[in-house]
Parts: sequence; structure tokens; C-alpha cells
Amino acid sequence: MIMSDLSTLAPANIRAIAPYQGGKPISELAREMGLNEAEIVKLASNENPLGMSPKAQMAVEEAIYDIARYPDGNSFALRDAVSHKCGVAPQQIVFGNGSNDILELAARAFLTTGDEAIYSQHAFAVYPLVTQAVGAKGIVVPAIDYGHDLQGFLAVITPKTKLIFVANPNNPTGTLIAKDTLKAFLAQVPKHVLVVLDEAYDEYLSVVDKSEAISWLAEFENLMISRTFSKAYGLAGLRVGFGLMHAALADLMNRVRQPFNVNSIAQVAAAVSLQDEDFVARSYAANQAGMAQITQGLQALGLDYIPSYGNFVSFKVPNAAAVNQALLKNGVIVRPVANYDMPDYLRVSIGLFSENARFIEVLEKILKS
Amino acid sequence: MIMSDLSTLAPANIRAIAPYQGGKPISELAREMGLNEAEIVKLASNENPLGMSPKAQMAVEEAIYDIARYPDGNSFALRDAVSHKCGVAPQQIVFGNGSNDILELAARAFLTTGDEAIYSQHAFAVYPLVTQAVGAKGIVVPAIDYGHDLQGFLAVITPKTKLIFVANPNNPTGTLIAKDTLKAFLAQVPKHVLVVLDEAYDEYLSVVDKSEAISWLAEFENLMISRTFSKAYGLAGLRVGFGLMHAALADLMNRVRQPFNVNSIAQVAAAVSLQDEDFVARSYAANQAGMAQITQGLQALGLDYIPSYGNFVSFKVPNAAAVNQALLKNGVIVRPVANYDMPDYLRVSIGLFSENARFIEVLEKILKS
Repeated sequence: MIMSDLSTLAPANIRAIAPYQGGKPISELAREMGLNEAEIVKLASNENPLGMSPKAQMAVEEAIYDIARYPDGNSFALRDAVSHKCGVAPQQIVFGNGSNDILELAARAFLTTGDEAIYSQHAFAVYPLVTQAVGAKGIVVPAIDYGHDLQGFLAVITPKTKLIFVANPNNPTGTLIAKDTLKAFLAQVPKHVLVVLDEAYDEYLSVVDKSEAISWLAEFENLMISRTFSKAYGLAGLRVGFGLMHAALADLMNRVRQPFNVNSIAQVAAAVSLQDEDFVARSYAANQAGMAQITQGLQALGLDYIPSYGNFVSFKVPNAAAVNQALLKNGVIVRPVANYDMPDYLRVSIGLFSENARFIEVLEKILKS
Repeated sequence: MIMSDLSTLAPANIRAIAPYQGGKPISELAREMGLNEAEIVKLASNENPLGMSPKAQMAVEEAIYDIARYPDGNSFALRDAVSHKCGVAPQQIVFGNGSNDILELAARAFLTTGDEAIYSQHAFAVYPLVTQAVGAKGIVVPAIDYGHDLQGFLAVITPKTKLIFVANPNNPTGTLIAKDTLKAFLAQVPKHVLVVLDEAYDEYLSVVDKSEAISWLAEFENLMISRTFSKAYGLAGLRVGFGLMHAALADLMNRVRQPFNVNSIAQVAAAVSLQDEDFVARSYAANQAGMAQITQGLQALGLDYIPSYGNFVSFKVPNAAAVNQALLKNGVIVRPVANYDMPDYLRVSIGLFSENARFIEVLEKILKS
């Protein structure tokens, strides 16, 4: 049997999947370019440049001594922490191996062959991936000014629509839907269509803009909120996120969840991180300052960018692919977003002051060369 | 909308899933029975009582300082380590969030509605779960003396058969298929039917019995081998396992794999653990000694048990559910296996000398009361 025959053992929808392209790891660039890891600045994965909560780090240092035991499959302590923090019942929470897992569980629990899922142009790449993996059809709604066109979402709902993905703020564009607009949209979505509201970047919103969607759960039983510890909480390497929803929906998600999907260290770190409000406040403030630093730098270089509510900003450059390669050669990793239908843009994550400065400095050198 | 309406939003195969029942965590029993955690002996999840490799532990202690970064989605360093250890090409390896993830990826990549998957009676509960979750049909082959009836497997292959799960040794029965029997079986399986050979307990086999299946991969392109770091390597809490297979099959599995399914700490710990052969040798020896201790104890109590090649043994007691409850009340956690079609049995994992002794002592007290 030859290789191409083996490939045909998977259904066509699986064979057609183009895997997710993550930010290039520092170690990989160091190998490829013969660079020293310490010289490399990675601003490619919307990670928290401050690291993790020091309190969580202390808790993790203790937790590693019990690692031969399986994790608590019910995440009892973390569930208790999220329940209190968010004001929801324990049965309304589903834990995931990152919020990627929550998005995938939603697709696996509720979508099947022939069903349709709706999401925006320029929205997070995982929505089409998880839709395609279960053999459902993705319906892409063209963006307006790089943001979600929610009226356009409503217009393409059909009897086959089972799931809608809404990212707020959206990655990689950084756009935000106003609260009243979002609530009016939810009121118009048919009750049998589930809405997954991805709030991975909520912690980077100001007090005024911060989501109130948790308080809408009682009113909209078809609403599912996704949150992550990978961004402002600084736990991307550990993999933990959660979904909040009606208990009946959580029960269905848990049926397709791997019993030990969230590792023990992640459970401990997440529970402690939730209590460390000071760390989240510092992360928010650092992001505000870094966003000003980077956008001022982009303006000074005469570059257009999409104003962002996240911890990243997408900017326009002539020949984005070539600029990206030049940045890599100089030890600066940003994210090309051609696969988000934005071939003229690059996305840069907000880093430390020195990292942001290095990015602007190298970018200037490249553009003027 | 009432709760029962919401449930109908998932397809029937999802609604029918009964979630996996893992071993009861120590913390949970302590809460339920008002016991002190230190008094509790958990022999319920086939964990390594020696913990993890001390070398891996040192590596983990360093790795936690970089946890705000996403994991390497390609597991470069771990891939290199497995590639060298197992003598396979890097492209033949798929990493999973535990080997549970590998089993699920196989189902998600290769099974679809209407397909059939074959597995044995009394085999690992995850095979039916992942089969049902993708809407495929599970075909259960009755066991012979609690072991796999491979002739029976061949007899039920139909044009709809896409996947066969073989556990060797099998959990929870501990039975082993002889190498020549297994190889003869593989030679008879049609080339378009994939065989997932689950070798989670291979490290507990003697040199004579240890699997040679990796050397068969070139001959049987439809063979997929699953391994874990959760058992002899003592990393159950971190979640990492891997699959070895033809590169074309690995490529398909990777298309449905979550990009960051294996966390950073697990990658570091697993790569270092692979090198610590001394730790695995000590774990094997401790298991041999503990197995002798426990089986002698069961014999002394006049109890039947299924001779086991794993780090656990299933034994028969009058009224297994009541004995299990009595064990729990006395702070001893074993695993009821009624959901494995073995209502008269309990499964005990091999622990430390003192834990095994405590289990036998409490069991004796219960049976004589």
C-alpha cells in the first residue's frame, strides 16, 4: 500500500483540513536562523509579557510533587473558584485544555455532518477548523471595517444553523462589539441556535467596556461564554480555559470532554490566579502602556493599523510576507495573518517596553532599507 | 425554553453517552467521608506509587518559569527524544494530551457516522466512548477467559469496519496476547482497516514479554501504536502520551489534533523521563514485588483474581459494590469495574509495600466482619 492510499482512509473533510499555524516558538527560530534564544523577541502569540501570577507560581512549585496522580477529572477546587468569581453554579462550568478545547467541544457536542456554523471573516482560525473536523459547513460572514457584521450573521441563519461563533474582542483584528449591539443580536438569534461568545481577551478591556455577558446567561439559554487563562492570566503553557453556559448544555459538553483534559498543574495555577486581582490589574496597565508605545511607533512610521481592544495590534505594511521574513532574520517574531484573509497585515503582540522598542526599531530599519 | 429542550440540541449519539468514571480522587473521598487525606490509600488509577523520575522533576522545576509562553505545538524536543528512543522517524509520531487523546484522535480522524469500530468485552472504557462520540457503531467481541478473542475480531469485520482497538496488556483484566498470536492477527486484518494497539502498560512487561510492535510498523502500514507517560513514567497528572504509525496516518491525526494539546511542562517532563531508564527499572521491580505481595494476600483470603501483566489486578469478591463501599469508609480507594461488565470484581492498583499491606488488612477485616 502506498502513502496516498493510506490518506484515503480518512473522510474527505478530514483530508481537507489545513492545520492551525501558531506563533513560531523562540527555540524554533533560534535553530532555523542560528540565533541565540536570548536575542529573540517573540511578539507573536498574544502572551502575557509579565509572565504568570507570582502567587500562582508558588502554588505550582508545590503541586509538581504529586504529578504521578491523575488530575481531578471534575476540577473540584478550580470549579469552586470559578463559580465564586463568576457568580454561576458549578454545573454551569465546563473546563477545557485551553479555551481551544471549549470551542472544539462545542462543535463536537452540537454539530454534525450537514449542519452549519456561522462565523466572521477575519475571525479566529479555530472556528473553521473545529467546524470542518466534524463534517459541518462553515458560513463566513464578510466583515465590516474588520469587525463582525451581526446583521449579516442573522441574515444567513437557516434551519441547518446550529452554532454561531462570536469573538469579542476579535483576534487578530482587535475589534469590539458594543454591549447593546451584542445583546440586541442575542435577542434575535433563534433559541435553537447556540451562540459561542469567545471572550479570550476580556481582561484587557477597560471597566466600561468589560463584558456583562455572564449576567445575560439566565435570559439567553442558548448563550455559551468561552474564557481562557492563556492571555492576561499568563498560563498559556499550561493549557486551561473554561466555558460558562446553561447546566443542560454543560452536561452535553462534558459527555464529549476527555475525562482528564485539564492537567493538575493547570488546575492549581488557574485557581490561584483567579484570586490574584493585583496581577491582572498590572497586566492590564502594562498592556495599555505598551499599546500606546507600539501604536505611536507605527504612526511615526506612517503605517496604518486597526485600533485594537486586545493585547495585540494588526498593522499594514507593503509586502507583509517579506517584512515578516526580515523581522525573523533580525530575531523578532510577529504573526503573519494571510490565512485570516489579511495578506497585507502583520499582527504584533504587546510586549515589555524593551521588546516593543526593539520591534519598532527593527521594523523601522527594515522599512527604510 | 426548559432544560429538556436544550438537551435535544445535541445529536442522539451525544445525548446517549455515559461519561467515563475515573478513580475517585483522594481529596474527594476526604470531603465525602470526613477523612484526613494523609490516612487515605488510593489504589484506583494504576498510577506509579514511586512518583515521577527525579531527573524529570528537576527539569519541571525549571520549566515552570516560562509558562506564560504557548507550548511548542510540534513538541520538537520531545519528538526528537521519542524518535531516538523508539527508532522511528519524527513524522511517524503524534503527541496526545495523555494516550486518551491519541485514542480519540484516531476515532475523530478515521471514523464517521455509520462506520464500525471493533473492541473486546472488558476492554478500556475509552474505546466505546470515542466511538460513540463520533456517531460510529461499536462492535463488542465477547472475551475468552477475560482476554481478547482475536479470531472473534476477524469474524466480525465488515465493509463498514474502519478501526480495531486492541489493548495489550488489557486494562482492567491484565491479560496479554502472545506476540506471535498478535502478529498473525495483524497479517489477517484487511489493509484498509486500522488497528490501534494500546500499549499503555508495556513498561510493566518482562524483557521476554515486552512488545516488538514498533518493529512491525514497516510491515503493517495499518498499525497504530499508542503509548503513555501516565503509568510507569509517573506523569499522569501532566497528561502526555503518543502514537507511532505510518507518516501518512500521523499527518491525518495531526489535522484534528488541537494545536497546543500537550502542555509545556508535560513536554519537558516526558523528554527527560524517557532517558531515565533507571527509574523505569525501579518502577518495574517495585511492581513485581507489589504484585506478589497483593496476589499472595488475595490467595490467603481465598479470593480469585485474574493473573495480570499490568500494575493492577482484578479480584472477585462476594458483593463487590458493598465491599467497595466498606473499603472507601476505611480510607482505601480501589476501582469498581461493573461498567466493564465485571460486576463481581474490583480492581486494585499495585502500590507501595505499606499501601498494599493496608489494602489487604482492611479487605480482610471487611470480609471477616
